[in-house]
Amino acid sequence: MLVSIIGSGNVATHLAKALNTANVQVLNIWSKHFKNAQALAGTVNAKAVEEVSQISDKSDIILIAVKDDAIAAMAAPLKNYSGIVAHTSGAVALNALGNLENYGVFYPLQTFSKQKDIDFSNVPLCLEANKAANLNKLKQLANLISKNIYEVDSQQRQTLHLAAVFACNFPNYLYGIAQQLLAQNQLDFDIIKPLIAETAHKVKTALPTAVQTGPAIRNDEQTLKKHEELLEQHPEWLTIYKLLSQQIKKTR
Amino acid sequence: MLVSIIGSGNVATHLAKALNTANVQVLNIWSKHFKNAQALAGTVNAKAVEEVSQISDKSDIILIAVKDDAIAAMAAPLKNYSGIVAHTSGAVALNALGNLENYGVFYPLQTFSKQKDIDFSNVPLCLEANKAANLNKLKQLANLISKNIYEVDSQQRQTLHLAAVFACNFPNYLYGIAQQLLAQNQLDFDIIKPLIAETAHKVKTALPTAVQTGPAIRNDEQTLKKHEELLEQHPEWLTIYKLLSQQIKKTR
Repeated sequence: MLVSIIGSGNVATHLAKALNTANVQVLNIWSKHFKNAQALAGTVNAKAVEEVSQISDKSDIILIAVKDDAIAAMAAPLKNYSGIVAHTSGAVALNALGNLENYGVFYPLQTFSKQKDIDFSNVPLCLEANKAANLNKLKQLANLISKNIYEVDSQQRQTLHLAAVFACNFPNYLYGIAQQLLAQNQLDFDIIKPLIAETAHKVKTALPTAVQTGPAIRNDEQTLKKHEELLEQHPEWLTIYKLLSQQIKKTR
Repeated sequence: MLVSIIGSGNVATHLAKALNTANVQVLNIWSKHFKNAQALAGTVNAKAVEEVSQISDKSDIILIAVKDDAIAAMAAPLKNYSGIVAHTSGAVALNALGNLENYGVFYPLQTFSKQKDIDFSNVPLCLEANKAANLNKLKQLANLISKNIYEVDSQQRQTLHLAAVFACNFPNYLYGIAQQLLAQNQLDFDIIKPLIAETAHKVKTALPTAVQTGPAIRNDEQTLKKHEELLEQHPEWLTIYKLLSQQIKKTR
């Protein structure tokens, strides 16, 4: 299978590397900035192109990995392309590519950072397509790079994308508050890393609601009050502390 | 070294097992409910006692692992005991045991569930004591069961305990929201587990603020609005979504 990629950001980079590692030939890479396309192309033996319309017709699948609001614009110059065009966004509906003949969604549900390599075989790939044959082809490609393949319609994918904010973006922000609290008291962030790891590890085998711990679920008013006092210098963190504690108490 | 334990909850259980595994003899276990003391004692070849005052004087260290507001009461019957009494709480000051001769704090910074075994060698142990000799003895014990030993004073420990709420209790609550959102849309919680794992894994080598992802940090207003619409049926989760997104935006 031959694949081309539109984009050179985090998702594009990790997809290109995963495909290359799986011996799937990446033909062309396009990016808004040609230099970025060249840089990524160089790492996966692909050829950078200056225009989307220059992407080779030999590509079986073109993956669009650009910002959500740029996806529709990428599809326009691909009107005469006969292969499958799939975007990689969690939030954009399938029909954003509806002016094409063969299209789909190839959404990797993971948080990517350019600096950090990832074992792509564990990344859940959420697939959707406008025809059964196209879905099958996307599945074939997905199977080459991951063992977690899911068929997910556009509405479910929206929910998934929202759930990912609660499961990833918000926890990471809260890790950041913890790290800053520690730093302000001459404590190393390292000291709390085993706790972060174990908290995530626990929910591999248990429902989060079943393993909730902490002062709020115990309704430990004394500790809650002490924590609120400690946060007096940080009114915004205090607001978060109060709101989340209040919600956790309600689940008792 | 000979150790006795007051308590039979999550912390007491994991400590007893870790000590037993490290071939540290656990002499006595006391619990409010004698049956619980017996059950735990049975798993670590210890002897359950019905009164705190019956704990053997041969114990070099007595660890108090009970609810915060019960700690001081446990110390009272130990007035004539000459060994070290250490509580295991993140939130209670060292001087809660101030009526004793030799006392300290032996705080394992981890989230424990009875059902789930844990590799105790990674659990950070935060130590404090009223005398250098007592601190050294607590360190000796700590070294037998963990490789992460920290000297932490009572004020730092309070901050640590607060940071743990942000790093563990709150993220776990948010995992629960994600899980429920998925369930309500016929999606398996499994699909999002690699994301949870990677989010926690990332901060082992990066500062959380440096690897923040998601619509809020991108200021992706369209997605934020769509997510808020999806949460219309869940006003409380919507409040959380708005507050945390707003805060993340401010860190841009």
